[in-house]
Amino acid sequence: MTTLDSTLAKTHASRALLRCKTLSAISQMQGGIHREYLSKEHKECNETVSQWMSDAGMQTWQDEVGNQWGRLRSSNSKAKRLIIGSHLDTVPNAGAYDGILGVLLGLEIAALAHHLKLDLPFHLDVVGFCDEEGTRFATTLIGSKALANNFDPAWLNIPDSQEITMHQALLDFGLDPSDVANAGLNPSDILAYWETHIEQGPVLESIDQALGVVTAIAGAKRAMITLIGQSGHAGTTPMNLRQDSLTGSAELVLEIEKLASKAENGEVATVGQIFARPGATNVIAGKTTVSLDARAQHDDDLDNLINEIRSRAELIAQKRNLSLDWQWTHAAQAVQCDSDIQALFTEACRLNNESSPSLASGAGHDAMATAPICPIGMLFIRSPGGISHHPAEAVIDDDVTKSLSVMFSALCLQAKNGLNG
Amino acid sequence: MTTLDSTLAKTHASRALLRCKTLSAISQMQGGIHREYLSKEHKECNETVSQWMSDAGMQTWQDEVGNQWGRLRSSNSKAKRLIIGSHLDTVPNAGAYDGILGVLLGLEIAALAHHLKLDLPFHLDVVGFCDEEGTRFATTLIGSKALANNFDPAWLNIPDSQEITMHQALLDFGLDPSDVANAGLNPSDILAYWETHIEQGPVLESIDQALGVVTAIAGAKRAMITLIGQSGHAGTTPMNLRQDSLTGSAELVLEIEKLASKAENGEVATVGQIFARPGATNVIAGKTTVSLDARAQHDDDLDNLINEIRSRAELIAQKRNLSLDWQWTHAAQAVQCDSDIQALFTEACRLNNESSPSLASGAGHDAMATAPICPIGMLFIRSPGGISHHPAEAVIDDDVTKSLSVMFSALCLQAKNGLNG
Repeated sequence: MTTLDSTLAKTHASRALLRCKTLSAISQMQGGIHREYLSKEHKECNETVSQWMSDAGMQTWQDEVGNQWGRLRSSNSKAKRLIIGSHLDTVPNAGAYDGILGVLLGLEIAALAHHLKLDLPFHLDVVGFCDEEGTRFATTLIGSKALANNFDPAWLNIPDSQEITMHQALLDFGLDPSDVANAGLNPSDILAYWETHIEQGPVLESIDQALGVVTAIAGAKRAMITLIGQSGHAGTTPMNLRQDSLTGSAELVLEIEKLASKAENGEVATVGQIFARPGATNVIAGKTTVSLDARAQHDDDLDNLINEIRSRAELIAQKRNLSLDWQWTHAAQAVQCDSDIQALFTEACRLNNESSPSLASGAGHDAMATAPICPIGMLFIRSPGGISHHPAEAVIDDDVTKSLSVMFSALCLQAKNGLNG
Repeated sequence: MTTLDSTLAKTHASRALLRCKTLSAISQMQGGIHREYLSKEHKECNETVSQWMSDAGMQTWQDEVGNQWGRLRSSNSKAKRLIIGSHLDTVPNAGAYDGILGVLLGLEIAALAHHLKLDLPFHLDVVGFCDEEGTRFATTLIGSKALANNFDPAWLNIPDSQEITMHQALLDFGLDPSDVANAGLNPSDILAYWETHIEQGPVLESIDQALGVVTAIAGAKRAMITLIGQSGHAGTTPMNLRQDSLTGSAELVLEIEKLASKAENGEVATVGQIFARPGATNVIAGKTTVSLDARAQHDDDLDNLINEIRSRAELIAQKRNLSLDWQWTHAAQAVQCDSDIQALFTEACRLNNESSPSLASGAGHDAMATAPICPIGMLFIRSPGGISHHPAEAVIDDDVTKSLSVMFSALCLQAKNGLNG
């Protein structure tokens, strides 16, 4: 068996979608969805998902950092673990699918495997990560980093907006802060980590495709770039005697756009913030700061792009007699998806008569954090309008059914072709 | 007599500069200069200047709107009035010379004429206007507009930041609000209005000149220009699928700079404000607003510049699939300086071995407001660093002596060549 009966696929996909709605109601926010790490809604959500896992024939547990697990045991007691998952936490005023849908599709895959009595040569582990968004404490991917033995004990001292430290919040939740490191896994036990996720971008929609196979999770660098000139009277300073920081920054914004647009491997670069000082209608701006967010699926490409932007910024400053200040604020390396898993997902798409366009993920995901301990693979589901982190976040039901069918085929192929070594 | 003895010129210029310092101490602000309309400092300043006018042999009065006057009477009782003046009010944390120096130089000219017993065929009136800056009430040039019969009675209802209306403030000052219109002058009584003022810009400094003859006071138009695109995730939205309002606005900012720079009659255009929304590092800006301040010494030039900017904005919006919103916020017509007075000032410069570069004023002045009732002329004094409206505002002593000598020569030429018709 390598493909799923279409009625069965539709039934299970519908249940996953319904359960997304059910979990939407477990929210710490009136009139919207918000579920943050170590909240009572986090606990209630884990309990609900745990019950669904049990109903699907799985053994369940919550780990030391607060991730929710379910296992469909292999008959081979020495089997490795194939982990399928995503996250159960949300940003404030979230949509219903970001993260959640990936967990619930993993759960349906397990339910189907159980229902169809598949004899899997690996334990099928489904995980609902406790914190990917990083909304409560000033760090992200807490659950998946803990899994990869990358939980930093210093995080325990980070306070939330109510001055409750992560240490205290763990205690309040019923977890032992000194025990969190035990959530870490042994890489030799793990076959792979698979994650299905909404794209959160417009690419699949623009090419009219339901699904995409992720090639890499983009690396990102952020900086605040300031050009400093000379304030002056907007009426009395002739154009040729100006040191206008804002026109210099405008030139930089366009160079950033141009350089990213002509880059050949899907690099992106964005200026989302701009601040001109003193910021009066009739005063030439003496100081202007822009934010830069640049991403690429290969670190070399990102470095090349950043270097080009930087040298353009220096040229603009020189040409316009401005001074340049460049402050780094963030850096994350690119993470490559495993090529064997990409091939497996592509074959699974083919078996279901689906195209399998490749695309990089511009957003971060739990798969980034698990990559240090196992091969990773990701399947994207089209996002109507490219919208996420917003109540208007949506999926097309039929796309979800297709993703379930493809992931089920991938599971069967994985079981059959012995990629487990 | 057409030129002034250099020692006498220096002595009187020094006194004018010293008196600028004296008036700086009459301030409603601790540690800085601020003197607004109808304040007790306004009254104290008028009284001080009135005393100096009396000492110079002038008849003095305060008019119905609060302007301070001094007259050196002609022996001809049917003589017209040559008015020399500027304003005595200041912005908060002002410099010592903006406006003030023009009044005190007028006063020294009168003192010299009195001392030298010149027989003038016109009354020499020196005026210290009560409000040019418009700091207290939301309107500017109150004193000079009242003179030109352009005081709008509706202004009486404008409250200041303490909710005191202009009506109440006039009463508190000792003036009758119903009497303000009587400050208006009869155009047939007036020969001309002359004003000496610091340049407030870098032009004279850049050409190493002390003085300049003003050709016109620029007209100005202001607008807020908004481009609306689509917000999006900075990581997941490919460059070719963006509707980025900020890159569109950056292109507009550069077009504005380019169009003003290539304009041939000294037009200027400035974007001093820019607001990008939502304004997050990792979100493509869906809506960006920029301010536009454009000025030109001829209204046709200003209209042409604005029309070009507007058509570029429309092209940018069209090309980038953005929508455009254009809101006018201010418009003032250009005012030409009288060509005979420009020629007179130029000849006065020549008599004093001074160059007389022509330049337009990008800033507004009382002369704008008096233009409807008489020919106007302005002489600019170099502003070191182009700085004004700031404690660092300065003048070079020798430049002030030169301006006094030139204005004295202009007075003698005016008296001699019968430009009074």
